[in-house]
Amino acid sequence: MKTLTELQTLIQKAIEQLSYPAQPPDLYEPISYILSIGGKRLRPALLLMACDIFGGDVNKAVKAALAIEVFHNFTLMHDDIMDKAPLRRGKATVHEHWNQNVAILSGDAMMVEANKLMLQVDDRILRPVMDIFNNTATGVCEGQQFDMSFESRDHVSAKEYINMIRLKTAVLLGGALKIGALIGGANEKDANLIYTFGEQLGIAFQLQDDVLDVYGDPDKFGKQVGGDIISNKKTYLLIKAQELARAGTAGELQKWLNNPKADSRKKVAAVTGIYNQLNIREQAKQAIQSYAGKAFTALNEIDLPVTQKQYLNAFADSLMVRDY
Amino acid sequence: MKTLTELQTLIQKAIEQLSYPAQPPDLYEPISYILSIGGKRLRPALLLMACDIFGGDVNKAVKAALAIEVFHNFTLMHDDIMDKAPLRRGKATVHEHWNQNVAILSGDAMMVEANKLMLQVDDRILRPVMDIFNNTATGVCEGQQFDMSFESRDHVSAKEYINMIRLKTAVLLGGALKIGALIGGANEKDANLIYTFGEQLGIAFQLQDDVLDVYGDPDKFGKQVGGDIISNKKTYLLIKAQELARAGTAGELQKWLNNPKADSRKKVAAVTGIYNQLNIREQAKQAIQSYAGKAFTALNEIDLPVTQKQYLNAFADSLMVRDY
Repeated sequence: MKTLTELQTLIQKAIEQLSYPAQPPDLYEPISYILSIGGKRLRPALLLMACDIFGGDVNKAVKAALAIEVFHNFTLMHDDIMDKAPLRRGKATVHEHWNQNVAILSGDAMMVEANKLMLQVDDRILRPVMDIFNNTATGVCEGQQFDMSFESRDHVSAKEYINMIRLKTAVLLGGALKIGALIGGANEKDANLIYTFGEQLGIAFQLQDDVLDVYGDPDKFGKQVGGDIISNKKTYLLIKAQELARAGTAGELQKWLNNPKADSRKKVAAVTGIYNQLNIREQAKQAIQSYAGKAFTALNEIDLPVTQKQYLNAFADSLMVRDY
Repeated sequence: MKTLTELQTLIQKAIEQLSYPAQPPDLYEPISYILSIGGKRLRPALLLMACDIFGGDVNKAVKAALAIEVFHNFTLMHDDIMDKAPLRRGKATVHEHWNQNVAILSGDAMMVEANKLMLQVDDRILRPVMDIFNNTATGVCEGQQFDMSFESRDHVSAKEYINMIRLKTAVLLGGALKIGALIGGANEKDANLIYTFGEQLGIAFQLQDDVLDVYGDPDKFGKQVGGDIISNKKTYLLIKAQELARAGTAGELQKWLNNPKADSRKKVAAVTGIYNQLNIREQAKQAIQSYAGKAFTALNEIDLPVTQKQYLNAFADSLMVRDY
């Protein structure tokens, strides 16, 4: 059995060995560029881990793992255009470094490359793997569209928000794990359980991200505290607060949301105060524990010795922060 | 055997029956919208025709034909963003009707839908069909990138230009025909021949388009004569003229290209005069006949009775204009 770190190293090396044609340079150089920017390679490493724990040969899952990483980076390239993001991990985004047309077209070509990589799985599991991959891709597109449409809406329900983060982020974790499990020889039941594990853990992780933005230790998480509050981002916290606030409090919250010139520090303090008053932090924690709980339940039900499953358990534990 | 018109009707009905989820509307409505704008449905109809002439059941090829049409319309949706085109067939383009982000993301989702449709072919031919489909998709992306990069280049060779139109347009015709042939039961040799037929015919057709823009009867082709000259488009005619013009003529041609304020009618007349002087029209005609000839040679070599092949022959004849 390989550790997560070993699998991340394995996939990193495989990414470095990917090569693309020299012509046309503006189509292929951005692909190598965005893949070189890095990231933790968690999705492909999880695919390999799922293969490994079901007794499969991880070397036979590398192409599928690369497909997941290439697909993920394609979505980043297009999302960065849509979000007008100038930087990704401290480097210029593709539409900034080249231009927008290059980022659109290179992204399209990347998606084709991801498909070519995924099609290299064995005949035995070709159809189920491609079905999972395509359904995941559809989910990610739907999630991104919901996310964009929420920005211009006044009201978003907690249920809609959870569904959005599930589609935008969690289904790809679930899909990567399920594909890895199938390559490793898992039966359908266990493959579905590991999908649920990834999906529910992904939701818990995204919700935790929302909480940490407000309540996290800035030294530990390296982010500006309250960045989401400053930008009026519709997080789980804000959505819950809008749902629960009555009369005066609701008006005060709305006043901060409607004032683009508000002093950032005062706004963060005031909105955090409202969250505290409404007990939002505790409710978010309960939601996180509920989704993480569903993930661990699914993991427990997988028909494998605990010694095999400990790797996924350890991964999940490392994702979930305890001290916030 | 079905005629091209019958197959176009069949595919049109199948397109009208395609349905997508209601949510999120900004992801799926643009897909239905661009597919409803129409077009001749030539690519999917050719796929069905190839299946038909090899003795296959066209009903079993409908999903693959839809995949080709959905893929083609995805490329149109993204190309329209890159070209900043306000209209397509007289209707607002998706990025104009909605916005650019919607057009990027809907296009991405369309490509996934195209993959799902294509994956519905029989197991027997699943891998070769997906390989053709993905290689075609890569070719189309490369062609579009070459086309965009040519705009900002001073010199493009005729060879580079032919390769660009081959990738951007012709490989999809070839790919559609080859996939249809495989579904119809063609052997590899015949499938490759029908690919060559489509590819070479596609090149001939695109070159003819360049000639007709300058020398076509405006009443017949419904386009402004010389539109390509006015916009300095690097067509086969311009590239050949730049290749062949010497000293004074080259300078005069460059003068027109460098003058954005030139009177359009005068510019069209002057550049056409240069083309005439250099005998460009005849050379383009020879190139067209050469590519069309390769297409017909490949068609002749296909191991099928002439009565079966007459449908493709008739289609090719209908594409190639004689009186220019």
